[in-house]
Amino acid sequence: MKKIILTGDRPTGHLHVGHYVGSLRERAALQNSGKFDEIYIEIADAQALTDNADNPEKVRKNVLQVALDYLSVGIDPEKSNIFIQSLVPALPELTMYYMNLVTVSRLERNPTVKAEIQQKHFEASIPAGFLCYPVSQAADITAFDATTVPVGEDQEPMLEQTREIVRKFNDIYGETLVEPEIVLSTNKASLRLPGIDGKAKMSKSIGNCIYLCEKPEDIEKKVMSMFTDPTHLRRDDPGHVEGNPVFTYLDAFCKDEYFAEFLPEYKNLDEMKEHYTRGGLGDVKVKRFLNNVMQAELAPIRERRQHWEQHLDDVVDILRKGTEKAAAKADGTLQRVRKAMRINYFEDGNLLK
Amino acid sequence: MKKIILTGDRPTGHLHVGHYVGSLRERAALQNSGKFDEIYIEIADAQALTDNADNPEKVRKNVLQVALDYLSVGIDPEKSNIFIQSLVPALPELTMYYMNLVTVSRLERNPTVKAEIQQKHFEASIPAGFLCYPVSQAADITAFDATTVPVGEDQEPMLEQTREIVRKFNDIYGETLVEPEIVLSTNKASLRLPGIDGKAKMSKSIGNCIYLCEKPEDIEKKVMSMFTDPTHLRRDDPGHVEGNPVFTYLDAFCKDEYFAEFLPEYKNLDEMKEHYTRGGLGDVKVKRFLNNVMQAELAPIRERRQHWEQHLDDVVDILRKGTEKAAAKADGTLQRVRKAMRINYFEDGNLLK
Repeated sequence: MKKIILTGDRPTGHLHVGHYVGSLRERAALQNSGKFDEIYIEIADAQALTDNADNPEKVRKNVLQVALDYLSVGIDPEKSNIFIQSLVPALPELTMYYMNLVTVSRLERNPTVKAEIQQKHFEASIPAGFLCYPVSQAADITAFDATTVPVGEDQEPMLEQTREIVRKFNDIYGETLVEPEIVLSTNKASLRLPGIDGKAKMSKSIGNCIYLCEKPEDIEKKVMSMFTDPTHLRRDDPGHVEGNPVFTYLDAFCKDEYFAEFLPEYKNLDEMKEHYTRGGLGDVKVKRFLNNVMQAELAPIRERRQHWEQHLDDVVDILRKGTEKAAAKADGTLQRVRKAMRINYFEDGNLLK
Repeated sequence: MKKIILTGDRPTGHLHVGHYVGSLRERAALQNSGKFDEIYIEIADAQALTDNADNPEKVRKNVLQVALDYLSVGIDPEKSNIFIQSLVPALPELTMYYMNLVTVSRLERNPTVKAEIQQKHFEASIPAGFLCYPVSQAADITAFDATTVPVGEDQEPMLEQTREIVRKFNDIYGETLVEPEIVLSTNKASLRLPGIDGKAKMSKSIGNCIYLCEKPEDIEKKVMSMFTDPTHLRRDDPGHVEGNPVFTYLDAFCKDEYFAEFLPEYKNLDEMKEHYTRGGLGDVKVKRFLNNVMQAELAPIRERRQHWEQHLDDVVDILRKGTEKAAAKADGTLQRVRKAMRINYFEDGNLLK
């Protein structure tokens, strides 16, 4: 069986370092591993519209921005198809068939959706499209016969919903769809990178994100303003590294060679943590080091972005070609699905049987 | 503005005389009135699957049967496009965009859906597709810019849901969609023809229907076994015509000329009712007359059906052409919708704006 990746993001804003360590970095690595036969990366505009129906402009504008973010982290259009969800007509068709296999109460129990409903203050006015978006994700994943879905940890309930739909479909209509597996970042700190204020979730509205396209001076400003250990008042006080976002960021981003380059008095992060824990290492010094790390990590990303920003017509072409390939692949799955359901009326004289 | 008709039926069984007087007869009359610019008649297989996902065979088999029923009641493929819903890809796409404009609680309040949920014993296990089918109906109606929807009275809540979606869409994205109007049969008895057992709803599972394709001897058997007025025990007893299905059927089917032909002792139905009410008219005589009326009404329908059953390849062609035309029309609406939402990325350089 082919090994196929499907992954993607909602285009509702610039992608940030949380997206990067949570999944984008992993995607680029998987892409370059040579282990996958096909890779599809979805700009999920239709999904973004499920809770932005009154502001399609926000979604529209960010389609290009997310494409630039993808290219900037090293997604290579020669190896990966970047495509726009709403331009793949097979996806809503598959969604409609899958919606018949899922109960309303099952959708209402989805923990990710439940949390989002609370966070968005939907209460009684949940758009039907929003409640059903896990079904549309199942269509996204199965349309490409994806075996492997590298996404953030919060997407695990979506994968479980997809697997349930796959099993139910195959059970009723015969073996047709492929069961996908999630691939999480192996770096534990990367699973849920906190905001610079230490809050669990980076959020544009709170303003606690560092974006991939951030300017060097803004990265520095944000890093230097980061929340640290509130009990670490003086340099000589013992400090805590657990729950200290500066160290979580270092866990997610630091490599040993950065010490050689920027702070040779430590060999690696463990040594630095040990010093901080016993006391005698000030927050400012740690932040300066983190700033150097972040600048080193983000500079090549920003430079690739600047390159593509000078070649926007090429980006449009990349999206057009990626979307065409994705649409053809998904249509193949849709035809297989219709055949399994025997509603391919005009084939094999099916209408007269 | 063009006057356009959209109507249709779920292909879950043969159509019966309730469908005929409730909407099919009206459709044929509207078709022949010359007042409409375009007519689309949908075989709603995708909608039928929302509560038949585990039995797609039932739906598949009845697509052809419903097409035959349409042709047999005088739907003329030269004037009306008969099409298969699931082969019009714009419909699920529109449905997905509309689902973002409707709340889950609004769908749960739909009286028709509520009644169906009870009737089907869904309770907690309502398929998401079933709850959302009024949204898919809104897509069906608006995709064709339908101004006029001749359906049964029970569909009024669906039309109201559609109008709400149209208003909300036009409000957010600008004037794009057309608000439809329902057309109900002007014959009051036709609005909800009871089953032959007097039950409010004709239902295949209860076995109280007379089908359009019924054989003459079966029509007679069913008419002669009909429920009448339970207080009218002897011929001379005064009888009731209200709530007496034999008279409801006569209200729906009888024309004055049938008296001249089959029962010249009465000039019209009012005279016959008057005699029954005062006493002295037996049920058997009324039923024999009703049988004559039903045979006269259903014979040309059955004969047309027999003709088309001999020309099934032509029926397949009719469906293929009707579906092609419907798909093209609906795609035009989808493009208009995407333009209104400004998510037509590859047009007008929209991706770069």
